Amino acid sequence: MAAASRTAVWSLMSAVTAAGARCPCHAPAVSKVLKRHAPGCDNHNHNHTHHNHNNKAFSTQKEDADYAFEMATSTIRYGKGVTREVGMDLKNMKMKKVAVFTDVNVAQLYPMKTMIKSLEDAGVHYVVYDRVRVEPNDISFQDAIAFVRKERPDAFVAVGGGSVIDTAKAANLYLCHPEEDFLAFVNSPIGKGKPVYNAVKPLIAVPTTAGTGSETTGVSIFDYTPKNFKTGIAHRSLKPFLGIVDPLNTRTMPPQVHVASGLDVLCHSLESYTAIPYNERTPRPKNPIERPAYQGSNPISDMWSIKALKMCIDNLPRAYKNPDDHKAQEQMILASTFAGIGFGNAGVHLCHGLSYPIAGGVKNYQHPGYKVDHKIVPHGISVAVSAPAVFKWTAPACADRHLEAAALFGANISNAKQADAGPILSDAIRKFLHVLDVPNGISALGYTKDDTKMIVEGTLPQHRVTKMSPRPVDYEALERLVEASYTIY
Amino acid sequence: MAAASRTAVWSLMSAVTAAGARCPCHAPAVSKVLKRHAPGCDNHNHNHTHHNHNNKAFSTQKEDADYAFEMATSTIRYGKGVTREVGMDLKNMKMKKVAVFTDVNVAQLYPMKTMIKSLEDAGVHYVVYDRVRVEPNDISFQDAIAFVRKERPDAFVAVGGGSVIDTAKAANLYLCHPEEDFLAFVNSPIGKGKPVYNAVKPLIAVPTTAGTGSETTGVSIFDYTPKNFKTGIAHRSLKPFLGIVDPLNTRTMPPQVHVASGLDVLCHSLESYTAIPYNERTPRPKNPIERPAYQGSNPISDMWSIKALKMCIDNLPRAYKNPDDHKAQEQMILASTFAGIGFGNAGVHLCHGLSYPIAGGVKNYQHPGYKVDHKIVPHGISVAVSAPAVFKWTAPACADRHLEAAALFGANISNAKQADAGPILSDAIRKFLHVLDVPNGISALGYTKDDTKMIVEGTLPQHRVTKMSPRPVDYEALERLVEASYTIY
Repeated sequence: MAAASRTAVWSLMSAVTAAGARCPCHAPAVSKVLKRHAPGCDNHNHNHTHHNHNNKAFSTQKEDADYAFEMATSTIRYGKGVTREVGMDLKNMKMKKVAVFTDVNVAQLYPMKTMIKSLEDAGVHYVVYDRVRVEPNDISFQDAIAFVRKERPDAFVAVGGGSVIDTAKAANLYLCHPEEDFLAFVNSPIGKGKPVYNAVKPLIAVPTTAGTGSETTGVSIFDYTPKNFKTGIAHRSLKPFLGIVDPLNTRTMPPQVHVASGLDVLCHSLESYTAIPYNERTPRPKNPIERPAYQGSNPISDMWSIKALKMCIDNLPRAYKNPDDHKAQEQMILASTFAGIGFGNAGVHLCHGLSYPIAGGVKNYQHPGYKVDHKIVPHGISVAVSAPAVFKWTAPACADRHLEAAALFGANISNAKQADAGPILSDAIRKFLHVLDVPNGISALGYTKDDTKMIVEGTLPQHRVTKMSPRPVDYEALERLVEASYTIY
Repeated sequence: MAAASRTAVWSLMSAVTAAGARCPCHAPAVSKVLKRHAPGCDNHNHNHTHHNHNNKAFSTQKEDADYAFEMATSTIRYGKGVTREVGMDLKNMKMKKVAVFTDVNVAQLYPMKTMIKSLEDAGVHYVVYDRVRVEPNDISFQDAIAFVRKERPDAFVAVGGGSVIDTAKAANLYLCHPEEDFLAFVNSPIGKGKPVYNAVKPLIAVPTTAGTGSETTGVSIFDYTPKNFKTGIAHRSLKPFLGIVDPLNTRTMPPQVHVASGLDVLCHSLESYTAIPYNERTPRPKNPIERPAYQGSNPISDMWSIKALKMCIDNLPRAYKNPDDHKAQEQMILASTFAGIGFGNAGVHLCHGLSYPIAGGVKNYQHPGYKVDHKIVPHGISVAVSAPAVFKWTAPACADRHLEAAALFGANISNAKQADAGPILSDAIRKFLHVLDVPNGISALGYTKDDTKMIVEGTLPQHRVTKMSPRPVDYEALERLVEASYTIY
């Protein structure tokens, strides 16, 4: 784009932005604001004022901030039993050799057995990779990459939780970029953060947990062992070709897995709904290929995030307390997909940022219900433990959205002031976690105050997510959040 | 899928369905039902009882009905000025020759000028096809097909309203299936209704009206001149690669075009929200490739449809009455996209079915604001004139949803009974159309009572849409709907 034409667009845009800056939606009474500000509303500037926390000033768009957002999502097929259709899909697509990814536990369960039968009934040739590590790392990713570089499949199927789907995405990416080394596409500044430039093979993702949302997104997360924290690869072209959302596949989850995966839904929705607005995110990309998958909250992600939050609040305790409550389980897997569409386009922020060292630095903690041969803090648990502290701290940036979320938890916000938003939402989350028997903060996960530095330093380089925080974050702020999260009840 | 395994799944599913059949959401007091029944709720059986119009019986799923739905949508990029990015996108995609589709009017306007500059700035080689007919027909489609079969582009850009985008989809489809004749993919029973079996070229759709939603869907509509009605081609693989939703592109619409295109949004959202539920649509496809794009209302389409309806009700009168209300215009183009994703996966029904002969059989009517060399009933007008009659008649099938829609128009439903749903919604729509100066029914479009037979007979074969009606429709029912639509005020 020529500089002159860019200027011309800017003058037109600035005129529009200025005209809309005194937003009629922004009224002092909170209840009035909440009523008028519905998800999908494009008035993003008015209730996010993270550079001015008293909400008195209205931000106008900065010239170096983005002015657009992009919604990409996998095609989603939902229904009880749809896993059985995948063989036919692959046959319709004329695929010659399919790599089926799973882990050793899921390999024994109904979803994988159903998938194999479906492939065999359709006469589709396949190879199984069942060495996916639960909470995968760079070593396990590279094992999977070596497998597919040898087998050279023309399509992928991933049957499992986020670990399995994310491993399949990474294997697919590096299969299709044989000349690139492992750090090429890993998020900057940990890796080189290159945009994906070759087409990848079609991946059909079949989640067996109700949490990841990975079936809808271009995000792949792993533990980076040289640093003892998680990081990832994120590009919208990595998103699966098709997400198979089959409520029969989560029937076999133990209650603890319902909770841990469901807490991921909770944080995906809360974080994406409170993420920095897309038109405050900097820098503005010079080329659309540089616009990140995590681009800030926007009118489309808002719809999915707030709906998923409501579904999660209403159904996760039921799914946990009563294993026979299939209706609640069905709503949770749908909520997981909805939240995936939300955060996959808006991003997550500090709960996820802090979770990467909290999970990656695990010492001796072993969560109940997880049959794995290594110590593990499940992703959803590592994310949720900082939520009471995080949303108390982020609330001043967009108090209305925090109050709106609190109301969904059942909190009474009728006389709440903007300044109350943080404490009210924080309390509501804390009560919710308590009902779900979530461990009492990061000290219950085996960490002591001596670990604060490790956790802060493991969070700081996670720019992909920390930059999505509605309040700019620094070492001291993270330190406060970690210290407030040692115990939460 | 083997018969035995299908039976096994069925017994599991039937158990679940039976357990949920006495839906807790279904209570006699309307206001209670409405509060609990939110978009995204998966309880579809309970509020659609189209085989039993008194709402006393609860349907359980029929064995030949579908049990799954699929949501597919184009990637959407929204922002003021994003049209300028398209040249870079095509360069990133390494496209060698791009066919740019438009019509002679749009060719002179800001959106097309911006597009051409963008392509030239990026050094992308392109050819322009500007002979798109507004309200295209089989003859104009075939002219476009001949053009691209000669030019052999490797990508498409469509800059215009639904006519332009739909023409580009058809040209792309037949370019990629050189051995097929024109009726091969046209909806059955008018055409052969074959599923699309080859990959099509990437199409970037840039709408310049706020109505079509075609940038998100796999649907292409045209007048079939041998029959004097409209029909179409619908397959999700026809959906554009990318939809560019740029509010600057609708600034040049005359007020009458705002109204006509906005009424398409209104009916897309109302029809898809009240369409037969996906799990009542028959037959159940034996292969997922046979699952139609129009598959009935579902928890994902519901979210888009109800949100689009609300945005349309709030903003279309403002966009019409005040050409400088850019905020309302921006909400309308976003509503158009939202409604597109909703109806693109759920379908539309009787307003659209009736509109095909109403528009296709035009005699001497010429709508103000449309600069074309032929008589025209704009699509949105042809759709809206039957809405008061249609929703009065469909209401008994899903009264709650009709009341919910009426409430969005501002109707007082606090003491409404289920039986009141039809008249209340019908009145609300009538008032809304009156404010927008919509012609007073199909008699104002040049038809007399002698035309009833032509309109009914032109609607009956439109199975793709008539089958989406929540009440089964026959000759007599259509006759009543047409007769009730001659005058509407």
